Amino acid sequence: MIKVLVWNEFMHEKDADNKASEIYPEGMHKCIADFLSKEDDIEVTTATLDDENCGITRERLRETDVIIWWGHCGHDKVPDEVAAMVQEEVLNGMGAIFLHSAHKSKPFMRLMGTSCSLTWRESDDFERIWVSAPGHPIAQGLGRYFELEGEETYGEPFGVPAPDETVFVGWYDKGEVFRSGLTYVRERGKIFYFQPGHETYPTYKNPDVQKVITNAVRWAKPVCRIDNCMDCPHVPPVK
Amino acid sequence: MIKVLVWNEFMHEKDADNKASEIYPEGMHKCIADFLSKEDDIEVTTATLDDENCGITRERLRETDVIIWWGHCGHDKVPDEVAAMVQEEVLNGMGAIFLHSAHKSKPFMRLMGTSCSLTWRESDDFERIWVSAPGHPIAQGLGRYFELEGEETYGEPFGVPAPDETVFVGWYDKGEVFRSGLTYVRERGKIFYFQPGHETYPTYKNPDVQKVITNAVRWAKPVCRIDNCMDCPHVPPVK
Amino acid sequence: MIKVLVWNEFMHEKDADNKASEIYPEGMHKCIADFLSKEDDIEVTTATLDDENCGITRERLRETDVIIWWGHCGHDKVPDEVAAMVQEEVLNGMGAIFLHSAHKSKPFMRLMGTSCSLTWRESDDFERIWVSAPGHPIAQGLGRYFELEGEETYGEPFGVPAPDETVFVGWYDKGEVFRSGLTYVRERGKIFYFQPGHETYPTYKNPDVQKVITNAVRWAKPVCRIDNCMDCPHVPPVK
Amino acid sequence: MIKVLVWNEFMHEKDADNKASEIYPEGMHKCIADFLSKEDDIEVTTATLDDENCGITRERLRETDVIIWWGHCGHDKVPDEVAAMVQEEVLNGMGAIFLHSAHKSKPFMRLMGTSCSLTWRESDDFERIWVSAPGHPIAQGLGRYFELEGEETYGEPFGVPAPDETVFVGWYDKGEVFRSGLTYVRERGKIFYFQPGHETYPTYKNPDVQKVITNAVRWAKPVCRIDNCMDCPHVPPVK
Repeated sequence: MIKVLVWNEFMHEKDADNKASEIYPEGMHKCIADFLSKEDDIEVTTATLDDENCGITRERLRETDVIIWWGHCGHDKVPDEVAAMVQEEVLNGMGAIFLHSAHKSKPFMRLMGTSCSLTWRESDDFERIWVSAPGHPIAQGLGRYFELEGEETYGEPFGVPAPDETVFVGWYDKGEVFRSGLTYVRERGKIFYFQPGHETYPTYKNPDVQKVITNAVRWAKPVCRIDNCMDCPHVPPVK
Repeated sequence: MIKVLVWNEFMHEKDADNKASEIYPEGMHKCIADFLSKEDDIEVTTATLDDENCGITRERLRETDVIIWWGHCGHDKVPDEVAAMVQEEVLNGMGAIFLHSAHKSKPFMRLMGTSCSLTWRESDDFERIWVSAPGHPIAQGLGRYFELEGEETYGEPFGVPAPDETVFVGWYDKGEVFRSGLTYVRERGKIFYFQPGHETYPTYKNPDVQKVITNAVRWAKPVCRIDNCMDCPHVPPVK
Repeated sequence: MIKVLVWNEFMHEKDADNKASEIYPEGMHKCIADFLSKEDDIEVTTATLDDENCGITRERLRETDVIIWWGHCGHDKVPDEVAAMVQEEVLNGMGAIFLHSAHKSKPFMRLMGTSCSLTWRESDDFERIWVSAPGHPIAQGLGRYFELEGEETYGEPFGVPAPDETVFVGWYDKGEVFRSGLTYVRERGKIFYFQPGHETYPTYKNPDVQKVITNAVRWAKPVCRIDNCMDCPHVPPVK
Repeated sequence: MIKVLVWNEFMHEKDADNKASEIYPEGMHKCIADFLSKEDDIEVTTATLDDENCGITRERLRETDVIIWWGHCGHDKVPDEVAAMVQEEVLNGMGAIFLHSAHKSKPFMRLMGTSCSLTWRESDDFERIWVSAPGHPIAQGLGRYFELEGEETYGEPFGVPAPDETVFVGWYDKGEVFRSGLTYVRERGKIFYFQPGHETYPTYKNPDVQKVITNAVRWAKPVCRIDNCMDCPHVPPVK
């Protein structure tokens, strides 16, 4: 079983004035956990800002194969210690999937080392997401592209390191492009950034989006796991 | 002085039925040579399929700092020996800029090692080319994007190795995206692929396109140059 | 089952004056096939220069999940058409492992696009191979390093594109270093270059070397497979 | 003029019991500043932990083209705010060269996003540093390798992202290897990590080491510079 922890700040969905409260009354994490739980090889738990210490402990992360992260207005409410723990466990081997506005989350920014900036606009744009790496495990089972009737527009430049692979490139009908699916290896951990998922659209109910996230979970599961990537061992001469 | 050799198959422009003959009566190579020649630090010569052995000799390539290549229907008319010479001189340090349909030229395919395939359509699409690496030398002096009223549409997936940097991403009004500017280092040579330039549009007369190509020439000029990258020297123990 | 085709030029082992004939009387391909065949999930066949058309047909490659290639003096005896077929099937999804002197084989050079040159010396050097990417699937089950009592020394610079990951770095007791294990993705195909395996040493009988090659087979097996990477499809507008 | 700021924690050299106090009585920063100042196109200032706020202000960094960083025991004495400022200015375009034990400095770790861990030993090892990317600007003017009579041994695995280019690989006579010169681009900034320079050896007085650092300064100088990489601008539709 692949043990997945879906983390969501869970703020917009509790705001009755925000469309998110209608679309995801129990939170986006619940929606994501639900479709992942249907897979025979995936086991899901969730955590949010409402939980003590964000619901994150070293022990829990060590039992997690892949963490999925959604955050936006609450980025600063995540303590630096929690963000550092997530970063370290990724380097120790845990997989990580960062969704949409998590591009500015503390754990993602720490792992990338860059600004992770982009341009944006909420104007009900239509998005067509092209598969640019059709051989990648994350793109299996999709056609040449898939579409989202409405999404927040994210535009280039995206302030991240050159990715290992650009799996998806997004086209927006009002004129922008965005590298919408990017993979990274950082020490023992695999990282996938995926752009779709603004809280005011039912993006995580879209079957293609669900397929991408499910594929990404399987791709990101650990090859191996260590306890202590931060150590710099003193070593004797070999012989 | 940076010595540039602009190579063009020069077929479409001699076909009176092809719009290219109106737009570039003397050939695209002449148009490109003309705008580059205005730069104080650049010196240009040209060659075409009409020249003996494509106008390419080992000696000429060794005196060339940067080669620019445009080809389409005539890819197969370039002898393998000529393509191999161009490939070797790039590995020896010569810069190379491949334009538009040169994605399927023999020298580019040899350097990439991949299919260099893509999807395409001629339907008078409007293209907006976004700068995705604004810090790259090739993107200097441009705004956030530039536009071409008409271009052939090229679409993903583009069958090339993951690039060192994705400098440009193209947006087409009929719905495609394409990684329009890609850089590679291959041994001592720098390589830039640039998508715009279908023969039936006045693309190489566009000031932004000219700026990109001029920047790319300066970026691709050799750092150092050797004669014999193909050698595998036998070496004695160091001491 | 992962279907592996071990290809070996099989020249040195048939030369009674060459130590290889004692170490590998039935050929290195037989030795490699033997240890791989012990794995429950791997099925092996072999081919050599002695077979018609190198034992390689399009059909056979399409039924092959991972090809392993050893060549040296016979590189030029492999027809260009065979090398092109191997290259294309890798781009179509077949995994490929290139061993030792296969760095100058036609299929590897075509896939890399570079000289693949290096420095070398036969002086009975001891080699210690360090794991530089301990989280990579190919490095699982190894210690921090493994050792070969004797190997041909390969030295830098190695004329290949920057790899996706440098899995191993070799240390030789007479003073050289070499990037001994490198991974590449090229379209749908995964490629692993592995330096050990000079014909006059029993390298492929070494348990660590066997573990590396076995891991590499599992790593390189196809994610997906297509028929026609070379096609550039004309596409109608999406809507 | 390229404006260089050499930053050194300057602790070991003030400790009379440490050999560093004999080799670099005025500090390693002074030694580095001295050889760089001999170049016509380079202008140097220095700063240390003894200066208020590490001698680092936003204004000073904005006037700096390339920062060189040496740190070891004092990593934790550098305030997080200073480290964040250095990181941001690199992303804004400032070049950065991290020397030896600066692999665990706060600015380098923030830029890499990884553990930056390695193995190490002080046992008076001899090091031979091989040029693995002879075409790189940083390697110009060197032979195939250069040597250091004594250095602290650094060993793999080195916990950093896959570099853009591996310029140097170190060989140590007691059996280790290390990727000794690595380049990265992070948004508008260029980064070079260079392994030599333990405080108890006169490494920075070595002419080859001086050539590498001088080359690296010229390579890392900004292409362009911005003020605000951290911004995520809201953008209106293009038209």
